[in-house]
Amino acid sequence: MSIKTPIVILNFKTYLESSGENAFNLAKALESVATESGITMAAAPQSADIYRIRQETDIPILAQHIDPITPGGHTGSNLLECLCESGIDGTLLNHSEKRMNLADIDEIVKATKEKNIFSVVCTNNIETSVAAAILDPQFVAVEPPELIGSGIPVSQAEPEVVEGTVARVKEVNNKTKVLCGAGISTGDDVKAAMDLGASGVLLASGIILADNPKEALFDLISKI
Amino acid sequence: MSIKTPIVILNFKTYLESSGENAFNLAKALESVATESGITMAAAPQSADIYRIRQETDIPILAQHIDPITPGGHTGSNLLECLCESGIDGTLLNHSEKRMNLADIDEIVKATKEKNIFSVVCTNNIETSVAAAILDPQFVAVEPPELIGSGIPVSQAEPEVVEGTVARVKEVNNKTKVLCGAGISTGDDVKAAMDLGASGVLLASGIILADNPKEALFDLISKI
Amino acid sequence: MSIKTPIVILNFKTYLESSGENAFNLAKALESVATESGITMAAAPQSADIYRIRQETDIPILAQHIDPITPGGHTGSNLLECLCESGIDGTLLNHSEKRMNLADIDEIVKATKEKNIFSVVCTNNIETSVAAAILDPQFVAVEPPELIGSGIPVSQAEPEVVEGTVARVKEVNNKTKVLCGAGISTGDDVKAAMDLGASGVLLASGIILADNPKEALFDLISKI
Amino acid sequence: MSIKTPIVILNFKTYLESSGENAFNLAKALESVATESGITMAAAPQSADIYRIRQETDIPILAQHIDPITPGGHTGSNLLECLCESGIDGTLLNHSEKRMNLADIDEIVKATKEKNIFSVVCTNNIETSVAAAILDPQFVAVEPPELIGSGIPVSQAEPEVVEGTVARVKEVNNKTKVLCGAGISTGDDVKAAMDLGASGVLLASGIILADNPKEALFDLISKI
Repeated sequence: MSIKTPIVILNFKTYLESSGENAFNLAKALESVATESGITMAAAPQSADIYRIRQETDIPILAQHIDPITPGGHTGSNLLECLCESGIDGTLLNHSEKRMNLADIDEIVKATKEKNIFSVVCTNNIETSVAAAILDPQFVAVEPPELIGSGIPVSQAEPEVVEGTVARVKEVNNKTKVLCGAGISTGDDVKAAMDLGASGVLLASGIILADNPKEALFDLISKI
Repeated sequence: MSIKTPIVILNFKTYLESSGENAFNLAKALESVATESGITMAAAPQSADIYRIRQETDIPILAQHIDPITPGGHTGSNLLECLCESGIDGTLLNHSEKRMNLADIDEIVKATKEKNIFSVVCTNNIETSVAAAILDPQFVAVEPPELIGSGIPVSQAEPEVVEGTVARVKEVNNKTKVLCGAGISTGDDVKAAMDLGASGVLLASGIILADNPKEALFDLISKI
Repeated sequence: MSIKTPIVILNFKTYLESSGENAFNLAKALESVATESGITMAAAPQSADIYRIRQETDIPILAQHIDPITPGGHTGSNLLECLCESGIDGTLLNHSEKRMNLADIDEIVKATKEKNIFSVVCTNNIETSVAAAILDPQFVAVEPPELIGSGIPVSQAEPEVVEGTVARVKEVNNKTKVLCGAGISTGDDVKAAMDLGASGVLLASGIILADNPKEALFDLISKI
Repeated sequence: MSIKTPIVILNFKTYLESSGENAFNLAKALESVATESGITMAAAPQSADIYRIRQETDIPILAQHIDPITPGGHTGSNLLECLCESGIDGTLLNHSEKRMNLADIDEIVKATKEKNIFSVVCTNNIETSVAAAILDPQFVAVEPPELIGSGIPVSQAEPEVVEGTVARVKEVNNKTKVLCGAGISTGDDVKAAMDLGASGVLLASGIILADNPKEALFDLISKI
């Protein structure tokens, strides 16, 4: 599946502010900003919230993780086929809070293609971003771990990481686009990221915990 | 929360036959057998299927697992609060396909009590069942791993495990009830389990993969 | 194997100060304090340091962990039989930095008995200590996680945890002895622990990182 | 550190036949074959056996795994610095029996360079081999998991995997050499591997469980 960029992906993580009813409202906020702005705004809620959000919104929905299993006896895991039926359009993979081994990333990226959903492989530096790009996901999202949740945007604190990732990923796979995450929360952060060559951003607490998430989302895309 | 026994809990695992639309239909079959028989029939679907099943059935729903986390940054995990809002009444914990460490079982059993949902700690022999009972869940479900998915019922192959678990659990905690799993698929298996002192059964593939799951469920409870 | 109590077990963890040559010297210090005082002083070094320490000291040596495997294809794991041949007399299990699932603790405690080595199951509170005691190890070592490495001794900050663990473990298994860990570093801490009924202590950074570990060890046992 | 190729690496895994005294004897056999043939023969024993083998042989020794930690509180883990002091010259990483996540492989490959030891990243197909090569280890060892321990040599069953890996790794990193593993046990298998461009082989049970490992080793290198 192809997806229009620039893209803003909001990782709901497991905050109370983005669980259940709150997750639903946050997805509605994303939808309304997307409609008004024309920018692609995607939600990555917990598994248990996907179905409900799918029933009532039109934005792209991502799983936060897919377990490297095939159908069968895997109690407590999240099966690709089940998540697809719940309504996902794509998935995050290998987030710093849910790292996957190399063989499993490869396996699940291949499986997502068969299901025609897109994948965003999270990485922590230039080298792992290039390695991930070899596996041919639609996106890599580079997030220096020390900046996650820090409020210090990677696009300003370590611009060379974003720029270097964009340049070196293109050398090995010019179909994989680069997002950047970690510390992004304002329109200036997003603009800086895109000026460095990123095709969008992956963010979380900066929006989820904002006093007014919808306003924060509008600010976020104000300079694209 | 207290729950009427005997109880039949169907672990949906991650079979295609019990995912998405199929999960929904299986839950409806459980509900219809429960209504007709008066026996408590509970469903343990994947996280992504909980909300939908909750919207349209009245049977008890269990999560298959709850991650030992508190609200916050835990991408790809399943938060207790989110699962509760989706509609669970209880949860499996420590299934042989999703073992948990001792401290985490303790933590989540305690957390389920605060949320007023019930917990079923899966175990593999008498000793671990007694150890789990110390943590005071509503149920332990003893399943010798070599019999899981074997079609050989624990209640007939190793009756001393069920009987011993019932007796020794009662010594340390007379509030925790014992279920038995592993290889259970017929009414005779269930009757044998209950004659040994079990308060119900935990089952999976024997029903999920049956040609006619609803018929298999009726057979299952025919001798209670 | 039976082991004389009171016992002081020094967990070498993975500090540079307790690796390689430094591990060897620390074991020699333990031996010299044990010889002079008559108190049992045991070392729990990294796997790679066990053989060398065994060749040149007579103190009890524990592994820090044993993987729940049987001989075969388990690259990168630590096999009980290999550790025994290297010279261990016992093992820590389920340390807060290497938690194990309940079934695996049970399996390895049973396996250590066949090999005639002793086991110390680490736990985090009264409930998990009692649950672990059901599995019949020689020792449980209760360590409230918030106090590990804090310099605040559990025997003084949470005496009720040590006392409660001693009392409730005795109810379910009067052969399992209770050690206490977390924050222990002085002779007063040890005395307080033993006054509360502990049969010894498990410690680490307080000694390993001391300016003079040997002196710190002498101080530690000065009030027993 | 540079190491002469072709190289034969024997992964001792956790067999009784390659633990303790048996590990020592196997290492002596490797040494004697290396001396007689001039071929580089390396041993990858369990951590607990490294020190003893180092004391009495001159062959290259690899760890089977290094935990992605820095010095400190990591009970039960294997610290790079400790393994180096025990005498390793290199390490396997990401073996199919001990998969690592992508960020950790990157971190440990970088750390091995600082310690001047070599790294062999195990992979399962062409794509993951190329991704691993991006991280710049000295070797990738490609082992299709379905052939491990099968007795069916990858060099004959799936020659295109070896050839494709050699070709595509060279495109992204011409310093990383390719080994092949999985099912290799005879001189013909090794010759086939090298004809396909491999710089050596990684093997295990085919030699460890042979009636006469030393003879099996001589046969193995007979056609190089």
